[in-house]
Amino acid sequence: MRTTLIDLDMSGSPIVDITDEAAGFVQGVGDGLLSVFAPHATAGVALIETGSGSEPDLVAALERLLPRDDRYRHRHGSPGHGADHLLPALVSPSLTVPVQAGRMLLGTWQRVVLVSLNRDNPHRRVRLSFLEG
Amino acid sequence: MRTTLIDLDMSGSPIVDITDEAAGFVQGVGDGLLSVFAPHATAGVALIETGSGSEPDLVAALERLLPRDDRYRHRHGSPGHGADHLLPALVSPSLTVPVQAGRMLLGTWQRVVLVSLNRDNPHRRVRLSFLEG
Amino acid sequence: MRTTLIDLDMSGSPIVDITDEAAGFVQGVGDGLLSVFAPHATAGVALIETGSGSEPDLVAALERLLPRDDRYRHRHGSPGHGADHLLPALVSPSLTVPVQAGRMLLGTWQRVVLVSLNRDNPHRRVRLSFLEG
Repeated sequence: MRTTLIDLDMSGSPIVDITDEAAGFVQGVGDGLLSVFAPHATAGVALIETGSGSEPDLVAALERLLPRDDRYRHRHGSPGHGADHLLPALVSPSLTVPVQAGRMLLGTWQRVVLVSLNRDNPHRRVRLSFLEG
Repeated sequence: MRTTLIDLDMSGSPIVDITDEAAGFVQGVGDGLLSVFAPHATAGVALIETGSGSEPDLVAALERLLPRDDRYRHRHGSPGHGADHLLPALVSPSLTVPVQAGRMLLGTWQRVVLVSLNRDNPHRRVRLSFLEG
Repeated sequence: MRTTLIDLDMSGSPIVDITDEAAGFVQGVGDGLLSVFAPHATAGVALIETGSGSEPDLVAALERLLPRDDRYRHRHGSPGHGADHLLPALVSPSLTVPVQAGRMLLGTWQRVVLVSLNRDNPHRRVRLSFLEG
């Protein structure tokens, strides 16, 4: 298994497109499964279309489904940070993408993104691992 | 890695049971992991019981959690289509099922389904990939 | 592929931390992917921080998002049990964790948990499978 960690600065955006990094990682390999894994307790990975408005739509939906208020038992950091700790239960930090001849078999509009509404830690990592088959 | 694409007509239903297709795909293989992957930006795959009412229950829940109205920045196609673009963040298009001796190790009531509330494109595909171990 | 089933008694809690069992399962193996799979139609697996309040926070969030009332078509068992049948669509029963030199590559605060709000069946199982690469 090949594996690597990529570093991301999310101070600019709660959703970062990492498709190019993932595509580069599997370039030149054969067939197999790519694991995209966020080693964080307040982040998830998703496959969505980017650049057409779905990023702010997703942030709005998550903040509506997991309101950033004082209802949470898990309290530390910014107000409402307990919501960040529930995000990975809905948007899993683990995703698997089939790869053929060094190319992810994504649909036309699918992009791999990291999702983290955590305002207290803009530095995030994603682990890419490729298992050949 | 063995991989194939199956074609589905979802004009009749937003949730289609693809367990039989997946079971047929792994029949005769050994042990390993089956990746079930929907190459679409508006679909997800899930493991639920079918035939007892959970399909309409899930559609109702998703339409309540992601209302089909004019709140979305992502606008094109049918009214509320922006909601379809958020579905894959909650119902991931990527799922992995353990396989032993050519049989998916599902629980008694688990069925593999494709979920797509997208009314604008009834033709959907699912990629099945098997990695032997 | 190595695979095993672990048995869990969830009568005490709807969220059970299975990180130690998973760590023990991959101890001594090489590099590869660990599949954590709940063979149930009313359970999911998640990666969250435990011991800081997120368990009750997650239960409260799920009971708010999927209310335990009489709205469901899927009716049997306890009142509102139809909600349990939707849980796996939001909290997937399938998760993949990268493993290196017999150690799960989790983040500092990530713990593997089984989530089951099903009050009618406290006996749950989780299948762990390791595919070496």
